[in-house]
Amino acid sequence: MEPMSKTERIDAALAGDRRSLSRLLTAVENRTSLAETALRRLYPLAGRAQLIGITGPPGAGKSTLVAALIAELRRAGRPVAVVAVDPSSPITGGAVLGDRVRMQAYAADDGVFIRSMASRGHSGGLSSATTAAAAVFDAAGFDVVLIETVGTGQSEVEVAATADTTVVVEAPEMGDEIQAIKAGLLEVADIIVVNKGDRPGAHRTASQLHAMLADTPRDARPRGRPTPKHPEVLVTTAATGQGVAELLAAIDRHRSVARDADGDSVRLKRAEAQVWAVLVDRLHERVRSLEGAQDPRAVGADAACEKPAAAGELLRAVASHDVDPYAAADAILDRLIHGGSTP
Amino acid sequence: MEPMSKTERIDAALAGDRRSLSRLLTAVENRTSLAETALRRLYPLAGRAQLIGITGPPGAGKSTLVAALIAELRRAGRPVAVVAVDPSSPITGGAVLGDRVRMQAYAADDGVFIRSMASRGHSGGLSSATTAAAAVFDAAGFDVVLIETVGTGQSEVEVAATADTTVVVEAPEMGDEIQAIKAGLLEVADIIVVNKGDRPGAHRTASQLHAMLADTPRDARPRGRPTPKHPEVLVTTAATGQGVAELLAAIDRHRSVARDADGDSVRLKRAEAQVWAVLVDRLHERVRSLEGAQDPRAVGADAACEKPAAAGELLRAVASHDVDPYAAADAILDRLIHGGSTP
Repeated sequence: MEPMSKTERIDAALAGDRRSLSRLLTAVENRTSLAETALRRLYPLAGRAQLIGITGPPGAGKSTLVAALIAELRRAGRPVAVVAVDPSSPITGGAVLGDRVRMQAYAADDGVFIRSMASRGHSGGLSSATTAAAAVFDAAGFDVVLIETVGTGQSEVEVAATADTTVVVEAPEMGDEIQAIKAGLLEVADIIVVNKGDRPGAHRTASQLHAMLADTPRDARPRGRPTPKHPEVLVTTAATGQGVAELLAAIDRHRSVARDADGDSVRLKRAEAQVWAVLVDRLHERVRSLEGAQDPRAVGADAACEKPAAAGELLRAVASHDVDPYAAADAILDRLIHGGSTP
Repeated sequence: MEPMSKTERIDAALAGDRRSLSRLLTAVENRTSLAETALRRLYPLAGRAQLIGITGPPGAGKSTLVAALIAELRRAGRPVAVVAVDPSSPITGGAVLGDRVRMQAYAADDGVFIRSMASRGHSGGLSSATTAAAAVFDAAGFDVVLIETVGTGQSEVEVAATADTTVVVEAPEMGDEIQAIKAGLLEVADIIVVNKGDRPGAHRTASQLHAMLADTPRDARPRGRPTPKHPEVLVTTAATGQGVAELLAAIDRHRSVARDADGDSVRLKRAEAQVWAVLVDRLHERVRSLEGAQDPRAVGADAACEKPAAAGELLRAVASHDVDPYAAADAILDRLIHGGSTP
């Protein structure tokens, strides 16, 4: 049997071959040349899936809620993919292990695909990596893509906020204050879920959140989304499935309102993240390929009159504080843009 | 009295005027034009301070440890600045409030300056923002800059890892497993501190960490630093100051070893983060200023032959999946680089 060509591999992934899909996701995560070929090919097929972000503090029960949402979506016959952003150590390999355990439950169901993605080391940004993975699932026919992140890091929260609907999950009375507020999660929430609803205090936490949101003017959500109204607050018990159908209904409700009001701005944000990631990659490639071997000090003196030094030389000069970062960046840009024509 | 010029303000900050310093740090955080003028001016004066990163899971006692390190450094007469990266909500203003409380203890001591920095929304990256703030403190004569971040997010961990010496703080027996391992913190650690050393289990946790590090081959620290040996493991009780002098000695020891072995590579990384941040800013400015008004679909068809559309048009076309992100990025780059000469 002949080995598959790039195109055949991509087509196999889009047709639902799980092994090919898995490989394609790895390529997308690592931004290889296969990823570029694939994304160019599948991008016109994507744009239909519903992206749902699930975030919240550790211990709120996000994974259990995701499992409950999968069960509910499968009951409705909707194919669902999960991108789980995992901060686990590359040493312990937590992400991959977690995947295997979670996938086992759906081994016989082609309508479910769970994929972990390491949160570390995405040159073009974590949100472009998850958006690209979502586009792969989208083009492969997954109707819903759940993007699960822990709500305790800048990048992680921003990723969840690029979904069509962002759900912030909170457990009742975790410590003295509401964790989601402490972590600055409320301003990205379209829907707030108080999970572990069977615990004492769940409904009290929900009421507190309600009251707090009513007191917060909508324009005080500085990095928030232009959601037309305050986020709904729901109570779920993911472990038993209690309230999960209602949550899904609220998500669909939000989607249909947001599609008119601000759906475009969320989609535009996602597009920007992806284009920007490619631009940064391209810039990286070009900077790396810059050649030259002149005293970098000359660049600090007069970047416009001298042939700029190689990027590596410049970085060393910045590291030794002989050239400032602005002079170095301008010299690199000058070289990139006028490189061919400088004498 | 006449208002101060930019240069006067910068010089006042460098001379130690706290109000001017505070304003300059705000400018640096927001990457204003004052920041550019200031960093160009002060960059040659910086490069002498010792940068110490302090990170670890919430509840490990990082802030208490930072306070204990400040006290120890002040006893030795060393001026010390703190950049505390704070994930707090912009709504609740936690960062600013926290600053005020922490600064009060040193109101009468010009040798201490504590500054919080929001972890959200740094276009050029959080690590370039903290590195720039550290350069300001450095040029203003602060001998040591402590960079404190919570170790629960990609960006936050990476920031701490750009310091000359990175200290990972862990409390004994937080839950079932060692939190720092779970969060993938070990590979950025130059020194590991088990804090709350007066609690039962502290020394056992230290032994476990010791054993684990002995079992981990050094080249299995994929995103780690080329530290010449395994990290030291120390026990402190920050609340009483127990072990803090020893920690400071270990930090100085690491610095003198690392300065020979890999000091250059850490400095080079910091230089790269800063130059890259400026490049990304410059690219942003240029992309924003791109003009044009052609059907974006033409770009998807043949980017090389058509006058590329405006960046905004292109992003809208990517959002509607009519153009893929690679075609859009290449069209923008093409416009940036050959913009003037395209017919």
